[in-house]
Amino acid sequence: MSKVTCHMSMSVDGFVAGPHQSLENPLGIGGPLLHEWHFDPMHEDDLAWRDSLLAPKGAYIMGRNMFGPIRGEWDDDWRGWWGDEPPYHAPVFVLTHHAREPIEMQGGTTFYFVDGFEAAFEQARAIAGDKEIDIAGGASTVRQALNAGVINELVVDVAPVVLGSGESIFAGITDVKLEQIEVAHSPFATHIRYRVG
Amino acid sequence: MSKVTCHMSMSVDGFVAGPHQSLENPLGIGGPLLHEWHFDPMHEDDLAWRDSLLAPKGAYIMGRNMFGPIRGEWDDDWRGWWGDEPPYHAPVFVLTHHAREPIEMQGGTTFYFVDGFEAAFEQARAIAGDKEIDIAGGASTVRQALNAGVINELVVDVAPVVLGSGESIFAGITDVKLEQIEVAHSPFATHIRYRVG
Repeated sequence: MSKVTCHMSMSVDGFVAGPHQSLENPLGIGGPLLHEWHFDPMHEDDLAWRDSLLAPKGAYIMGRNMFGPIRGEWDDDWRGWWGDEPPYHAPVFVLTHHAREPIEMQGGTTFYFVDGFEAAFEQARAIAGDKEIDIAGGASTVRQALNAGVINELVVDVAPVVLGSGESIFAGITDVKLEQIEVAHSPFATHIRYRVG
Repeated sequence: MSKVTCHMSMSVDGFVAGPHQSLENPLGIGGPLLHEWHFDPMHEDDLAWRDSLLAPKGAYIMGRNMFGPIRGEWDDDWRGWWGDEPPYHAPVFVLTHHAREPIEMQGGTTFYFVDGFEAAFEQARAIAGDKEIDIAGGASTVRQALNAGVINELVVDVAPVVLGSGESIFAGITDVKLEQIEVAHSPFATHIRYRVG
């Protein structure tokens, strides 16, 4: 069976997005600071972790808030934040209660719209073969995956940033066991890989 | 002037104590798991960080909740959690609105009871000379020190533990700048030292 991974940039205080997420601030106030470690100019010690983030996967699962700011019925003009060629290059299962036809993008990304984490995960399993399934985010989708007990490996990139409040992938999670299996760092982030039990 | 430090064991989700702190669970549910890295048997890669935690300081500042579970007027029988010889070996300024005479313990620790962070910090400055002042905790006292802008260096020992909720030293803090200056790890913790700006 394919490995299920999750790789999140996080503040020192445990948030993957800042407060007050909006169309203007999709990552919340201060949220973009979490991602500076994988922007240019990049430190050589961060390269392997950026590459792991962008490595080919068999499928992704993503929350609707991560796909776009639209609530309720779909606006068919919205095709994600990433332009014509999103960086996924694989099937992406977007969690939503509102049905929508799949959207085939350039570069191998196809967005499928599925009602419920369990259904999305079954479809991702079926299509991923022996390749990784990645839980792309946001926080609520990662929490669903942790509660479902399906994540095998979690990487957090701890940025030297304090947000004070925001979205946590662990809020209310009490029964997840972590085993720390790898640590590396540049001046811009501390990367920690955990096996999830 | 003396350097002001703070050194806290923390969960991956940013908590220094678990929820539901009480006399039976002074560190909250799951809180003791954060401290396993500096218990016996200790991994050799953790030793230097345990030593830094226990190194001689000029003075400590501590919240009343960290000193004991008593609320309101003092019960003079309570002399802290640590027995006759606490591990501080220096003056410890305990924040409280309730006056109490100093308590001289064995091994050089004296507990002084002071009303307000600012007053405690002034007294610690006066007594510490050129030795470090350490903000010992708990979360609320660290937040007061961060808001006062007095902490120069912060060490977090990130344990491979998820608490789901609890006490954060950063809750509501939005204007603290961190510079990551050192990282080390054993299988039981990732230690990160930050300069605080």
